[in-house]
Amino acid sequence: MTQLKNDLLLRALKKEKVERPPVWMMRQAGRYLPDYIKLREKYDFFTRVQTPELATEITLQPIDQVGVDAAIIFSDILVIPQAMGVEVLMEEGKGPSLPKTMKSQADIDALVTADAENNLQYVYDALSLTKKELNGRVPLIGFAGAPWTILCYMVEGKGSKTWDKAKQFAYTQPELAHQLLQKITDITIKYLKKQVKAGADTVQVFDSWAGSLSPADFKTYAQPYLLQIADAVKDDAPVILFPKGSWYALNDLSKSSASGIGIDWSLNPQTARELTNNSITLQGNFDPAKLLAPIPQIKHWVKEMIDGFGTQNYIANLGHGITPNVPVDHAKAFVEAVKEYRSE
Amino acid sequence: MTQLKNDLLLRALKKEKVERPPVWMMRQAGRYLPDYIKLREKYDFFTRVQTPELATEITLQPIDQVGVDAAIIFSDILVIPQAMGVEVLMEEGKGPSLPKTMKSQADIDALVTADAENNLQYVYDALSLTKKELNGRVPLIGFAGAPWTILCYMVEGKGSKTWDKAKQFAYTQPELAHQLLQKITDITIKYLKKQVKAGADTVQVFDSWAGSLSPADFKTYAQPYLLQIADAVKDDAPVILFPKGSWYALNDLSKSSASGIGIDWSLNPQTARELTNNSITLQGNFDPAKLLAPIPQIKHWVKEMIDGFGTQNYIANLGHGITPNVPVDHAKAFVEAVKEYRSE
Repeated sequence: MTQLKNDLLLRALKKEKVERPPVWMMRQAGRYLPDYIKLREKYDFFTRVQTPELATEITLQPIDQVGVDAAIIFSDILVIPQAMGVEVLMEEGKGPSLPKTMKSQADIDALVTADAENNLQYVYDALSLTKKELNGRVPLIGFAGAPWTILCYMVEGKGSKTWDKAKQFAYTQPELAHQLLQKITDITIKYLKKQVKAGADTVQVFDSWAGSLSPADFKTYAQPYLLQIADAVKDDAPVILFPKGSWYALNDLSKSSASGIGIDWSLNPQTARELTNNSITLQGNFDPAKLLAPIPQIKHWVKEMIDGFGTQNYIANLGHGITPNVPVDHAKAFVEAVKEYRSE
Repeated sequence: MTQLKNDLLLRALKKEKVERPPVWMMRQAGRYLPDYIKLREKYDFFTRVQTPELATEITLQPIDQVGVDAAIIFSDILVIPQAMGVEVLMEEGKGPSLPKTMKSQADIDALVTADAENNLQYVYDALSLTKKELNGRVPLIGFAGAPWTILCYMVEGKGSKTWDKAKQFAYTQPELAHQLLQKITDITIKYLKKQVKAGADTVQVFDSWAGSLSPADFKTYAQPYLLQIADAVKDDAPVILFPKGSWYALNDLSKSSASGIGIDWSLNPQTARELTNNSITLQGNFDPAKLLAPIPQIKHWVKEMIDGFGTQNYIANLGHGITPNVPVDHAKAFVEAVKEYRSE
């Protein structure tokens, strides 16, 4: 194995001392990068995801062009429903749609579960190829969607502001919901383990719609499955959990097998440290909309953010994915500001 | 003035002892009610809002049909931009759109501000007529959108998941944002005072998109204007502030001139009481998606909610507006469960 030249991310996750915080950005591969947009004009979304050479090229773009301290494989959380035999359509600029939604026991029973993770060989191939191309420059991050978030899409059939149908399904047919969540969890664990074998140095689990749940419902429908995943994968690689919107769960999750927790901007760094008893590496939490402000202002805010989190046990990142309208120079300024950080 | 036969809501807001908590539901007038849907087929949205007889009829429907302890005037938060001379279109089922968005100093300067509240006479007429028709059965609630939420629509031009453009406007042109927020605030104060004169017994300020802001940005762009409104209106009528998603602001707001704070379901009742030092009347926080569950389950959850908040200094409500797909019987069951509540 090639020795990593920049292992800041992995050291931060192990709570080892670092010279400065590592920095990467959720959704850093894609959308706002001109070279990505060129590829998008030639290949549709799932061609880009399923062709290891393309996925690798896209994954590497922000390493070279923005200077982040980690690569995250270009893929999508909805490859899991696909692997389970569910059709997923992606219309450019419109978000995903799943024509066949989960409604009944028969729908759940019809899902492919045995060896479903083997349907995602293209992800493992992309990871291996990316790992080779990175040649030890920075660590490689694998990822999956959290079971609750995947259920949201499988029941709702498309994005939603309120996830009413997904919640109605959970609240009226809780046994079915738990069956579905467990099936997703089982496949996700195998999927993440295979990602690590293929080259991922760490994995992140995105619970993008966790915040649609009340604290009690998060404990019922989200948390147990996040904990199962962290427990099962922790010996393979460090796990980062990102429960967007679920600030109320941070204390519980800080006691889990995860090595890091992603934080959105709905709480300030000091509060995040308090809620987690300063016991776990935190990642976040810059409001992506702030990347649209002038560069000196971005740099000022980054400094404030690091002042708040501290330089240790910390990974600088956004509080959610970078938006397509961010100028590349502004993304670079964000990364530079972390690298230039000096406390006073 | 007619004596109120049911003044539970007003007593709860004054922190006086009540026999049981009052109950009403955000968006209780409209959407899910068959009689409303019939009116919707005959009159377009702004005709319903701007015709006092129709607005009154719609406002009264849930009093008779669902049994809530308060009426909230049927209107829309976007009447304020309209009063300022901004066109607002409402396409049924699609949400609002504002073709001319705020971008520059010239846009802000062009807004109508002098006596703009007088352009909303139809709201005052609807309140007076409703007050008369209610004949003291229950209190009448007036309302307005919070300045930050109104700015969101005026800058973005339509609904958004992330409010990027609104935030970009605030972060890149803060002086303009504050000018706009102040103009909205000034008109909103006069508007709410006139609502009280016309018959509103209390007023609620909806900051539906407060949660898109970080704690620091909420303190910059939302909180000062909410406080101005509460300070200016408190001697006219009790003010309820509803900063959806901004749990981090609850402590500050509990020390404001407001008489009540609306809570969404992202925090449990006990946490809400702790964050507000048990010092203010709280309102909420049932997940509207739970109204889609079976009735016995709804009643069980309502009991849990009231157990959590306690029966005093509390107004039972949803954590956001009722959704169109809720069966009327389920809305009724919610209200009945509050009325039947007995602690054990």
